[in-house]
This record gives sequence, C-alpha cells and structure tokens, in this order.
Amino acid sequence: MTAPSIDVVGIGNAIVDVLTRADEAFLAHQGLVKGTMALVDAARAEALYREMGEGKEISGGSVANSIAGIASLGGRGAYIGKLRDDELGAVFAHDLRTLGVGFATPPLKAGPATARCLILVTHDAQRTMCTFLGACVELGPEDIDEKLVASAQVTYLEGYLFDPPRAMAAFRKAAEIAHKSGRKVALSLSDPFCVGRHRAEFLDLVDRHIDVLFANEHEITALYETEHFEAAVQAVRGHCDIAVLTRSERGSDIVTREALHHIAPAKVAAVVDTTGAGDLYAAGFLYGLTHGRDLETCGKLGSLAAGEIIGHFGARPEISLKLLAQQAGLI
Amino acid sequence: MTAPSIDVVGIGNAIVDVLTRADEAFLAHQGLVKGTMALVDAARAEALYREMGEGKEISGGSVANSIAGIASLGGRGAYIGKLRDDELGAVFAHDLRTLGVGFATPPLKAGPATARCLILVTHDAQRTMCTFLGACVELGPEDIDEKLVASAQVTYLEGYLFDPPRAMAAFRKAAEIAHKSGRKVALSLSDPFCVGRHRAEFLDLVDRHIDVLFANEHEITALYETEHFEAAVQAVRGHCDIAVLTRSERGSDIVTREALHHIAPAKVAAVVDTTGAGDLYAAGFLYGLTHGRDLETCGKLGSLAAGEIIGHFGARPEISLKLLAQQAGLI
Repeated sequence: MTAPSIDVVGIGNAIVDVLTRADEAFLAHQGLVKGTMALVDAARAEALYREMGEGKEISGGSVANSIAGIASLGGRGAYIGKLRDDELGAVFAHDLRTLGVGFATPPLKAGPATARCLILVTHDAQRTMCTFLGACVELGPEDIDEKLVASAQVTYLEGYLFDPPRAMAAFRKAAEIAHKSGRKVALSLSDPFCVGRHRAEFLDLVDRHIDVLFANEHEITALYETEHFEAAVQAVRGHCDIAVLTRSERGSDIVTREALHHIAPAKVAAVVDTTGAGDLYAAGFLYGLTHGRDLETCGKLGSLAAGEIIGHFGARPEISLKLLAQQAGLI
Repeated sequence: MTAPSIDVVGIGNAIVDVLTRADEAFLAHQGLVKGTMALVDAARAEALYREMGEGKEISGGSVANSIAGIASLGGRGAYIGKLRDDELGAVFAHDLRTLGVGFATPPLKAGPATARCLILVTHDAQRTMCTFLGACVELGPEDIDEKLVASAQVTYLEGYLFDPPRAMAAFRKAAEIAHKSGRKVALSLSDPFCVGRHRAEFLDLVDRHIDVLFANEHEITALYETEHFEAAVQAVRGHCDIAVLTRSERGSDIVTREALHHIAPAKVAAVVDTTGAGDLYAAGFLYGLTHGRDLETCGKLGSLAAGEIIGHFGARPEISLKLLAQQAGLI
C-alpha cells in the first residue's frame, strides 16, 4: 500500500444549481415539499424554470460541493462525475479545476444536457430542490478511474448516486477498489426521500461497506424508520466506524462504537440560504479526518465550513475556508 | 400621438455576467485597469476564464439591468438585444421574462455564442470587466421593433452599443423613431474607455439626439476631456434636457439648464460589489421620470436602487425595489 497522493476523491452527480427566491405559496402551487429534493424530467424542469424567478447559476452537486470545500481548506481533492460538453458543463468543470481539484471524467458529446438543480430558497433560508439529472444518468463503472480511487485516503459517495440507473455499479466498483487499496469509504445519505427510495440498499451498504456515514436528522430517522433521533443513534451505532449526524441549529453528533461527541453549531450573523450546509459540513469533517485531527476537531471544522456556506447564496465557499479555519485556531 | 403603453424600452448588449473575486495582483498580471470594461475576443475570454476563480453566472448587460430594475419597481419595461440560442442565452431571456419584461428579439441560430462578461470583484467591491461580445455583434437596425419603440415613453440606449459594428445603425434608427413619435431618448455613457473610443459620435449625439444623459464622474470628464467635474457640469449643461451625473459615495447631481439638484448617496451597510450601481441608478431615475415624479424624487429612487444592488454580488435586484421604495416613502 503506497501513501495516498490525494485526500478525498468524490463521486457524485455533477450539477449546476439555478438559485432563486420563492415563497411558500409557490412551493405549494408546484407541489413541492420544502427542504427536500425532487427528481424531475426535462419537460418538468423547463416548465418550473419558466415559472420561477431570476436565477443565479452556481456550480453545485452535493459531493462536488464537499470536494470544493476540501480544496478551499487546502486539502487535495479529485472528482468523478458526468457532464455534457455544453455551456453549463464548461461552467461546472471550470469551477472545480480553478480550485485545483482533479477532474477528468470525459463529458458526453451527445445526449442529455448537463444536469441542473432548480433551487427555491424561501424567506426562512430553507432550500427546496428540483433536479433534472441530464447527463448524470450516463455515469457508469467505466468512469471510475481505478488508480485515482486507489490513491485517495477517502472515497466519498453521495446517496443521490442511487437515482441515476448506472451509477450504482460505479459506486460499488469505487467502494471495492478503495477497500482493496486499504482506503476508507464515506457516504452521505443526501435526502430523506432518496433514503426512502433506496432504503434496503442503503442499509446493506452502511452495514457492510461504509466507514464514515454522513446524515442529517431527517435522513437517519428515515433510514431506520423511526421518529426519534436517539433511536436512530442507537440503530446506527456500530454499523459503521463513524456516523456523523447533523441537526441544523442544534449542532451535530459524532457517533462511534465507544463514544458520542456533541459539536456546537457555528455562529452565523444571518442565515441566507441553507443550500450546501450538509455538503460543507462533510468537507470540513473529511479535511480534518484526512489530516489526522481528532473527531471533535473534525466536527468543529465541519461546523465552521457549514457556517460559511449558509451566510450567502449558493453551495460553494465565497472566501477561503483555510483562512477561516486558521483564524478559528482549528488548523 | 397615442398614450405610451410601456415606460421604457432598453436597447443594449445582452450579456450574462460571470462574477468572481480577484485580487489586485491578478488584475495587474492580466493587464486590466480596475473599474473599467475591456473588450476581449473569444480566445482571450477563454484564457482569462481558465485563470480566474469559481464564477457565479448572473444575467447582466448594462441597459438590461436597468430594465430589470424598472420592472422590479413595478414599471413596464421592454428590451431589445441579441442572443445566441444557447444555454446562456436561455438564461438571459428567462431572467428578463420572469420579471414581466417584454423581450422578443430573435436569437441567432448560428454564429457566435451569447455574450459574457467576466467580472473580477476586488476586496474594495470595485468591479473590473472583460466582455466577449459574441452574438451582440449581430444586433442591427432590423432588430428595432418600430411599434415597440413608438409605444415607449423613453427609449434607453447604452454607450456600449457603439462597440459592436452594426448596433450604431440600430441605435440611430431607434432614436429617430422615438423622437418622431414624440418620445424621449436617454443614453448612458457606459464607460470612460468606451467614451474615449467614440468621443466625437457621443458629443454629436448628446448635442442633437439625447434628452436624458446618464454618466458617472469618470465618463463625463472623459467626454469633455477635462480633469474637473465642475468643468464637465458646465460643459454638459444645456446640451441635453437632463444630465444625471453619479459620483459613487458622493451621491449624484442632476443638471438641467436652470438648476442643479444634489442627491445624497444611499446608506448601505456593507458594499459587496459595485457591479450595476450605475445601471440601477438609471432604473430608479427613469422609473420616477416616467411616473411623473420631480427630479429630486427621481434621483432618490436612483440612489435607493443603486444602494440595493451594491449590497450583494451581481447587477440584478435580489429583493423587490417596489417594496423598498414604498418603505422609503418614495412611491
């Protein structure tokens, strides 16, 4: 086993976000459930886009946001995800590469367009998402670069990968390579509805293949079909080395077989848009983990990164997280 | 002369902005002059894009920003500008139409891509712009909808239209229709370098065809080749009915043959990005003018709209300017 040359390789749906403000009546009229992600086809995406307000196009994608955050902290990241060779695809690729993130998945030359996620941000800073998967449906095991995965300390996968048809095979191939190479595999549950769509596979994965699990309160209770967070904590304990459970303004809990660390939430002047909060928490945590920090510091780095992202529109850091973390004495 | 059915029709370069943060060293390395707009070709735009940081794509274009602002104030606006039928073109068109702005210029089906402006925002909130005109170079007199221009109280043109080769003919055609229909013509000088490139034509236009002129301190002194703002005020006086001269944190002066009204700048908690400040000042002013307000109120509406835009990234309002203006007791 050679020394890992990168910290984290992320595999996910490569998506450009289109953010706009909306009110609750608009969500209700569109039949959307606040705070969740719905998959939509091209026609529905176009219809919703016509109805919604002015948008800001900002690169997104759950795990891609995390990798961007790791790079912003000074970590070494790489990404695997499927684009089309169109304008939004160029935007997505640019925004990762400019951060120094390795990204070499060949884009589609024909077929569906680069994925986009229409994000409606309500006055309470909650985001409601409608994703058109587009080119992401073509991600398959052939896109998994064996050398790249073997060279990363952690392979980080998003639960959203369970939605496109062929990504699951890519997911399993990557996890297998990582473990064969003595590396760790981390997973985000992504969304409670996504958990509901694929519960059996998630339970099996968590039990057998995942070292570090990220989930928010809604996702972990959805996974174990319980209403009680504490019951979910007991259920997940021991099924993976580390379960990192985020609870918005109540902070986060890091659960291992032996211990539970509670981490306070970051102090934020004004919460503008919660898009990416979980993604950036994972970024901070994984940066800490791949740099030998104790679990409590990993959690604090997660809170710090999440705190930056919810203070503005969009799920990519606007200022250097490394600088922020240095100022906070965390790195 | 029938009653005007819309308040302002804007004609300009239809551009999507790509905003990122940059430091002064990056500007120097790229040979850019802070606070100005440089025209670049496709190759230079691509090279600069590769070097710059993560971007936010937000619809822009000087006069288009103004028309968006007028719509946000509750006014009736329309726009004429040239796109390509590509993804950024669809974004631009969506963002105007969702505001209720009439926009029917047919996009190019082949040829150069929709224009983009790479905007580098320094820590002092100043923006430095590099524009690839793309599809805008195809705007011509055939795109001027005679009925539309005749139906608008004010036809608003940007000085940037002097740059693409055929837009000047469109510009002159529109001004002629407007005046023949008993309407007013307004012009923004856009940029001091743009003024330098086309000074003689600007002087002729201001003298003979423009009723309302918008310029900032740098542009008006460039037009009259003087270092002194007061000398420029004297020079412009009487050459157009109303000259609206903006001076950033020093507020603005509205100059007519008989009077000079000084308007205080808006109070802003934190200036984040000055992109669009002049465009939104013009929006507030033209909204007031087309709704029968006195010049002082027009200026205050301009300051209010500019104040909103400089508090965040991008040149399109993030909240309802109508609500803001109502709260301030201006409408």
